[in-house]
Amino acid sequence: MAVPPSTYPRRLLPLFLGLFQGALLLFFALFVTYDEPSAQAEDTNLVANQVYNTFPFFQDIQVMLVVGLGLLLTFLPRYGFSALTHNFLLLNFSMQWALVLQGLLQHFHHGQIHLDLHKLLISEFAAVTVLISVGAILGRASPCQLLVMATCEIPIYLASEWVIVTWLGVLDVGGTITIHIFSCYFGLGVSKALFRATQQPLHPKETPTPSSDLMSLVGTLILWVFWPSFVAVLCQPGDAQHRAILNTLLAMSASAITTVVASSLLERDGKLSLGHLQNGSLAGGVAIGVVADMTMPPVAALALGSLSAVVCVFGFRFLTPLLRRKFKLLDQCGIHNLHGLPGILGAAASVLAILVASKDTSRSQSSQLSPAGGNASEVVEGQWGDRGVGGQALCQAAGLAVAVGASLLAGLLTGAALRLPCLAWPPERLCFDDSLYFKIQDQAESPGPDSSAEEGALALKEQV
Amino acid sequence: MAVPPSTYPRRLLPLFLGLFQGALLLFFALFVTYDEPSAQAEDTNLVANQVYNTFPFFQDIQVMLVVGLGLLLTFLPRYGFSALTHNFLLLNFSMQWALVLQGLLQHFHHGQIHLDLHKLLISEFAAVTVLISVGAILGRASPCQLLVMATCEIPIYLASEWVIVTWLGVLDVGGTITIHIFSCYFGLGVSKALFRATQQPLHPKETPTPSSDLMSLVGTLILWVFWPSFVAVLCQPGDAQHRAILNTLLAMSASAITTVVASSLLERDGKLSLGHLQNGSLAGGVAIGVVADMTMPPVAALALGSLSAVVCVFGFRFLTPLLRRKFKLLDQCGIHNLHGLPGILGAAASVLAILVASKDTSRSQSSQLSPAGGNASEVVEGQWGDRGVGGQALCQAAGLAVAVGASLLAGLLTGAALRLPCLAWPPERLCFDDSLYFKIQDQAESPGPDSSAEEGALALKEQV
Amino acid sequence: MAVPPSTYPRRLLPLFLGLFQGALLLFFALFVTYDEPSAQAEDTNLVANQVYNTFPFFQDIQVMLVVGLGLLLTFLPRYGFSALTHNFLLLNFSMQWALVLQGLLQHFHHGQIHLDLHKLLISEFAAVTVLISVGAILGRASPCQLLVMATCEIPIYLASEWVIVTWLGVLDVGGTITIHIFSCYFGLGVSKALFRATQQPLHPKETPTPSSDLMSLVGTLILWVFWPSFVAVLCQPGDAQHRAILNTLLAMSASAITTVVASSLLERDGKLSLGHLQNGSLAGGVAIGVVADMTMPPVAALALGSLSAVVCVFGFRFLTPLLRRKFKLLDQCGIHNLHGLPGILGAAASVLAILVASKDTSRSQSSQLSPAGGNASEVVEGQWGDRGVGGQALCQAAGLAVAVGASLLAGLLTGAALRLPCLAWPPERLCFDDSLYFKIQDQAESPGPDSSAEEGALALKEQV
Repeated sequence: MAVPPSTYPRRLLPLFLGLFQGALLLFFALFVTYDEPSAQAEDTNLVANQVYNTFPFFQDIQVMLVVGLGLLLTFLPRYGFSALTHNFLLLNFSMQWALVLQGLLQHFHHGQIHLDLHKLLISEFAAVTVLISVGAILGRASPCQLLVMATCEIPIYLASEWVIVTWLGVLDVGGTITIHIFSCYFGLGVSKALFRATQQPLHPKETPTPSSDLMSLVGTLILWVFWPSFVAVLCQPGDAQHRAILNTLLAMSASAITTVVASSLLERDGKLSLGHLQNGSLAGGVAIGVVADMTMPPVAALALGSLSAVVCVFGFRFLTPLLRRKFKLLDQCGIHNLHGLPGILGAAASVLAILVASKDTSRSQSSQLSPAGGNASEVVEGQWGDRGVGGQALCQAAGLAVAVGASLLAGLLTGAALRLPCLAWPPERLCFDDSLYFKIQDQAESPGPDSSAEEGALALKEQV
Repeated sequence: MAVPPSTYPRRLLPLFLGLFQGALLLFFALFVTYDEPSAQAEDTNLVANQVYNTFPFFQDIQVMLVVGLGLLLTFLPRYGFSALTHNFLLLNFSMQWALVLQGLLQHFHHGQIHLDLHKLLISEFAAVTVLISVGAILGRASPCQLLVMATCEIPIYLASEWVIVTWLGVLDVGGTITIHIFSCYFGLGVSKALFRATQQPLHPKETPTPSSDLMSLVGTLILWVFWPSFVAVLCQPGDAQHRAILNTLLAMSASAITTVVASSLLERDGKLSLGHLQNGSLAGGVAIGVVADMTMPPVAALALGSLSAVVCVFGFRFLTPLLRRKFKLLDQCGIHNLHGLPGILGAAASVLAILVASKDTSRSQSSQLSPAGGNASEVVEGQWGDRGVGGQALCQAAGLAVAVGASLLAGLLTGAALRLPCLAWPPERLCFDDSLYFKIQDQAESPGPDSSAEEGALALKEQV
Repeated sequence: MAVPPSTYPRRLLPLFLGLFQGALLLFFALFVTYDEPSAQAEDTNLVANQVYNTFPFFQDIQVMLVVGLGLLLTFLPRYGFSALTHNFLLLNFSMQWALVLQGLLQHFHHGQIHLDLHKLLISEFAAVTVLISVGAILGRASPCQLLVMATCEIPIYLASEWVIVTWLGVLDVGGTITIHIFSCYFGLGVSKALFRATQQPLHPKETPTPSSDLMSLVGTLILWVFWPSFVAVLCQPGDAQHRAILNTLLAMSASAITTVVASSLLERDGKLSLGHLQNGSLAGGVAIGVVADMTMPPVAALALGSLSAVVCVFGFRFLTPLLRRKFKLLDQCGIHNLHGLPGILGAAASVLAILVASKDTSRSQSSQLSPAGGNASEVVEGQWGDRGVGGQALCQAAGLAVAVGASLLAGLLTGAALRLPCLAWPPERLCFDDSLYFKIQDQAESPGPDSSAEEGALALKEQV
């Protein structure tokens, strides 16, 4: 079952990671420092706010990414270690890499980069894009390929985020456009360029088992619970953050119920599909991000959540098989259904929300919509007032177009690069198998936890 | 193994849920809105408090209900998907339904219902009753039956909660009487009316396996960790909340240790029973709810926790088999042992606490006990002073009686309604089986995660 | 498979625990009370701070210890119930026992011990030492032995912590020296004295299976996510706490990446070892504790995290087998690699950090390093200024020496006591097996959740 060491290049991963970690140490030694101890009472207050207000949200997001997303990816029954470990590794790698790049780009003052919790959080958001994109090629790519992908994706994300949020002034507090849509089409581009026109046959190890599906469902539930923290962490404190939390809760609740309806109606025998549940329940959270802190009636959040779930389940049922058959496009985890389609829906909703809100002219616009603050709080207050309602609506659409276009193009190029033979692309028959990357105990010698039956089988095996 | 689509009515669930979700959208569109953006600094402060003080508790409770309780219910080895999904679905359904009803009943001002995090939290508490009641019939009822049950239980709960807390003025900050006792006897009533006098034989799929018991134990531990948040979230901030957290921590710690003692002593060979551990460790949390914020010495919390665990384990060992044998009463998860008996103990303790506290006349009574504030903060300050100590103690007892009586009666009626043939009651042989509700991958084609032994068995199977 | 009740003393555990719980109730009844209700606004503020600032950290730590550590220990495939339950039981027992002892020693004023959340937290920290030490003998000791060990370890820990933090004035905010190093060498001492020179052969049930390794990896990830809360909870609020969180995040991130590098390089075929991942990823958190709140550049945290991971993986690869072979020293979970070696590294780093910081004389020393505040906030401000930089550096080294020496000696004595025949030491063939302590359902009668294959095997078994 195992590959002989000679045929699979195993020193590449530690070499790549070791060099990266060394370079990071050098970079930190030269340029990175903490803020000066705050002498003024106001600064102390600011620091306390970061610890007491941002840190709980930050921890929630860490749980989502490390435990929730990790478990969600363990639906491949023989690939649980790889799914958890690669997800964990990529999160740390991408966060550190984003920290370096963001430091260089934005925060280079007087030769020093001042580190604080907010900058770590922004880097973590950048890392999320990589974790989502990986879903398209999960199980068929080596860790080296994934790391190279992350190396390419982070700078492109930072550039695209700058164009969308800072330059275009798109409002997207929950990262629907900048994170979900971007990473989805980047991942699909990579998948297309990597696998080209070769139809990937259904691999025997690709089918979930009940126990792997159960772990994956637990992962979904963890993501579902903590999603409001992800959407609301970068909101302006106060009303906007409160509204973002409520909107997200409503959207996710509607998603959960609508997923059951849609899945049950679409399957021929009316049974629920676990893939639908694992993804559809979260679709509302993806879509709501871009409008979460805007003033809109609660019913809009419910409707958006319901619609996203429908779109997501439809995608799984019809679009993914179509893309696989017609366009030879592989999307292992269905990221197009969870991040792409609901993201586009959310972007469209943001255009609508802005246009509708402008009709309610009784209150000043600035107090209604601008509290959003933008993804990195960099939107200048009043900017939107200058450009008018139509302008802002157009901006949202432009942001969507930039996110889709840039990510697709960059993904295709990155995918082409991943075909380099030195990157240890695993052969087809060894895909979806932990034993390529992990020392797995020989099953025959160690009876499992609930294995009197297995032992019986083994004993039989020896007798026969 | 699967039922032919024709024999099992599968369109009912999506129809019911779809109509509900549509009606909810309509209701929200017509009546529900967010609070106006707060112009005054004080209001901003209030909102910030909701976000920073209530939201972490809210998230803890979401983890408890979605992940913790969900996992606890996965002890049925072939019913894990159903347990997790039905629990998740019922939580969302009941919360939305409670939101509608509470909006109509309490918060209908000027034709608009103002939504905030506190109202969502109150609705979540209402939903908890459904999740507990389900435990009595877990595995033997269809999702449609469970949804109809939820539809009936939520309004009855709201009415009973109004009578107990607002009308009678019962102090019950952690929902011991209003939530745990109510939902327990409601569930038992449903079970009795649904299964009537037919003795349910032990189903072969009812017995936990080591791996399902392990998941269930993890669920217990998650519930155990976050329980203090559940009890303390509605307390008055300050001393009362601090005391509620400490009392709950002490009670749960005593429960954990005492459960081991009781389980070990009651089993003939001195081994621990997993069912006892999974439930007994939580019994202290159920009992402490009603007295958590009252002034009483810490030893009382410890004693109450210990006693609840003993009562819970005794219930599992002797009472549940007796009820099953003598009264033909089915209680699948033993909710009577976890929620009923410890709840009654807690209610009795609250009477005692009030009577004892009154002896300490050195301090004014109002500062001692009234900080409780009641479940929905609706207890008028000083009300208790008017009615005297004996009156308040009597009220607690009356509240207990109302909760037991109303819930039992309503449960019996609801259970009778659930016998309607249109509700897709699963036949006995298909109980406790996910494959009735979920598309399960054919095991034979997809080798499991740790299945070299299984594969061996399969290979053998084909040879033989 | 099961032991006849007569040969294994089963009444000891409930007897011991029952007596303890009774004595605790008596002690609480006589001496323990809550703080008086706070009349002053300032006190109310203090209480609110405990609830809103300390409680979230406290909950995080509870998740770490109960769920994270519990799952990490389930790598023994047939010992999952025991690992989770004994960990849970020991946490509660040790916390209550530490509460009693600390009450007696420190907080006995006017015949009353005033309980608050901070004191529970300090007791929880004491209990952590027991949970770590158990790792050395996991699976080979009875719960009675573990409880006796806890009974001995808690007072010795409290004494050693007093000597190290209060008397010597060692700075150790994250408990690297006082908790990790102490508990590691205590555990190794117990193991050595308990098993003496008898080489323990590799037990067939000792080898993890994929599914038990997966649960254990999830435990690691939960610990990894919440570790910053553990390190930062006792820091001075403000800059010091913010710095502690950032340093811990950096160290753990570096650990995660470096573990992959080291594990891949050290295994002959370049595959990753799950044992390395499960432990190495956390090594940075152990090492950073002692320096987390000191002023040092961020690169130091990264370097310390990397180095700890290297040391931890090296320990697993070379040192543990050596100790087992040469010194007949059993270290079941490899606590020496996770807590011992990284702890010593951290202690050395603290000496270095103090010496280096003294060179930066531009700012006053007291504002730079003393915000640490010590483990129990008992370090007198300015103390370090009196003793000078060299003195403080020497103190750190002395603290390390005290922790290692005292714990090793005490551990050896405790281990000798555990050999008492009355303590129900399980025989070798029954080690690593839940069925000695738990009622396990007979597998043959209850088919598992994913068991069509197993059922097939069973059916075959009956036919053959």
